[in-house]
Amino acid sequence: MSAKIRIGIVGYGNLGRGVEAAIAQNPDMDLAAVFTRRGPGALKLQSAAPVHHIDDVAGFKGRIDVMILCGGSKNDLPEQGPALAALFNTVDSFDTHARIPAYFEAVNQSAEPGGNTALISVGWDPGLFSLNRLFGEVVLPQGATYTFWGKGLSQGHSDAVRRVPGVKGAVQYTLPVQAAVERVRSGSLPQLSTREKHTRDCYVVLEQGADAAQVEHAIVTMPDYFADYDTTVNFITEEELAREHAAMPHGGFVIRSGTTGGGNDQVVEYSLKLGSNPEFTSSVLVAYARAAYRLNQLGQTGAKTVFDVPPGMLSPKTPAALRKELL
Amino acid sequence: MSAKIRIGIVGYGNLGRGVEAAIAQNPDMDLAAVFTRRGPGALKLQSAAPVHHIDDVAGFKGRIDVMILCGGSKNDLPEQGPALAALFNTVDSFDTHARIPAYFEAVNQSAEPGGNTALISVGWDPGLFSLNRLFGEVVLPQGATYTFWGKGLSQGHSDAVRRVPGVKGAVQYTLPVQAAVERVRSGSLPQLSTREKHTRDCYVVLEQGADAAQVEHAIVTMPDYFADYDTTVNFITEEELAREHAAMPHGGFVIRSGTTGGGNDQVVEYSLKLGSNPEFTSSVLVAYARAAYRLNQLGQTGAKTVFDVPPGMLSPKTPAALRKELL
Repeated sequence: MSAKIRIGIVGYGNLGRGVEAAIAQNPDMDLAAVFTRRGPGALKLQSAAPVHHIDDVAGFKGRIDVMILCGGSKNDLPEQGPALAALFNTVDSFDTHARIPAYFEAVNQSAEPGGNTALISVGWDPGLFSLNRLFGEVVLPQGATYTFWGKGLSQGHSDAVRRVPGVKGAVQYTLPVQAAVERVRSGSLPQLSTREKHTRDCYVVLEQGADAAQVEHAIVTMPDYFADYDTTVNFITEEELAREHAAMPHGGFVIRSGTTGGGNDQVVEYSLKLGSNPEFTSSVLVAYARAAYRLNQLGQTGAKTVFDVPPGMLSPKTPAALRKELL
Repeated sequence: MSAKIRIGIVGYGNLGRGVEAAIAQNPDMDLAAVFTRRGPGALKLQSAAPVHHIDDVAGFKGRIDVMILCGGSKNDLPEQGPALAALFNTVDSFDTHARIPAYFEAVNQSAEPGGNTALISVGWDPGLFSLNRLFGEVVLPQGATYTFWGKGLSQGHSDAVRRVPGVKGAVQYTLPVQAAVERVRSGSLPQLSTREKHTRDCYVVLEQGADAAQVEHAIVTMPDYFADYDTTVNFITEEELAREHAAMPHGGFVIRSGTTGGGNDQVVEYSLKLGSNPEFTSSVLVAYARAAYRLNQLGQTGAKTVFDVPPGMLSPKTPAALRKELL
């Protein structure tokens, strides 16, 4: 067994903690250090890894094999992704779908001259769901692909509800419409509107004196976030919010339904039922960190995505063991 | 658009016909020729491709980009796989799981000096199911993987029933035990015996004068094939066999159930519901033929499996288009 892969974590929120826990499940990896914007002394880690300020990260060049970037797609990664890919192999979960092409270019332009490998947009969507959208359409070129999300807590939509005046606390769950899922599974290739695919459930704690009807109206008519969906608003107490809605479950389905050349219907379905969205995403990031390290060892530098990674590189097993045990 | 990928088909049974039909769904490919052991004039193709005798195949070196081997794993591929990989890039669906390591070595030893790329054991199991077994264990290293097959027609078991004295015709369906599937989906990590996972249904036409009880006993006690399963034998007429049991449906599930580092349960499920097993397998073979061609262009020669193929290489789309449309 060669030396362990030395992993660094940048950002210690839910995702960073999840990565720390996932590394402990992978004996070929070591958590070398955690980097944070906060005062390093303020972090309470689960492990004994050292904590450093992000400003000192450049001094770790050559001492960390892969840096896993656990910041957010909106404010952190657009800056950190290119900056750190100049110094380290990186893996991140950049998930603003519309901005992936621009982000890829920015990261590629700094990873390539640095001789580093940067895997972007890793996780389950983008990530494992993207792979299943790809496999679906290459195997069944005549067909349609459907992605459903949920039941799951949506961070972006929860934040949007929290910004409504009169809201003290809130969570939002996205739910697939079961009837729509069943129509897709049947192979009938339905055309489905946004409203037909998902519903949204909000659990809201009101500020004292806030008008429930007004808050509800502000939520359900909010453009982009709720106006195109059937949205239910439930008012609850602060205690209930803390007690019943602290977990972060998620999941969903990618279904490809198509017809092969001889006229036969074929349905491929991939589904996730996740007890913790950030922990699962973290586990995907850690598996891809192994691949980033190996790709770099093979001289495959620059920005990459899950589409570029031979699946065998994700496993600590040898190619011969994979063929014998899993093929 | 560059020139089309020139595909050859070796063997024109269900799988060969499926490949022919799948090529018609992929505009970047051309069916260059079909090779057969039979008299070429005896074949009735669906397309206008030329038919040649397999003995003449060496003369096509350099005129076919990828040869798709559609013979059987028992008698055809052990000989054809190594022989043809010396001359052409190849894709096959070798599916005798226990013999994959030896087959890989034999094919590799002839593909490598020939400068060819040979993708072995491509299809859905081995193939897409293998990939999902791999993804499951790399993302959830603490957990268990379950593979269920069916409902589907099993060719090997149907053949075994047909060899029983007194049987004129027969088909055998493998069925997953729904209760076992539900236990696995619940995340309870059950230990399941062979008998608990699948049942077997046989539809049998008796020879005139055969003893039904004797035939049934011979089937349900057959070692390896039926003794370890709950098997039902239904006696039907020859007409009913032809009318109701001519299709070749199949499918199944790969379920990975595990716990991430923070103690949360996570369940990943991949499932197939196939109207035609050979047509679906053929469609997978054709997508991987595109990858075999591209791997060879990159100088990646020798025997490979689905574990070695970056998924993006399966698609006719550019990497930039894949990132924009599917990631």
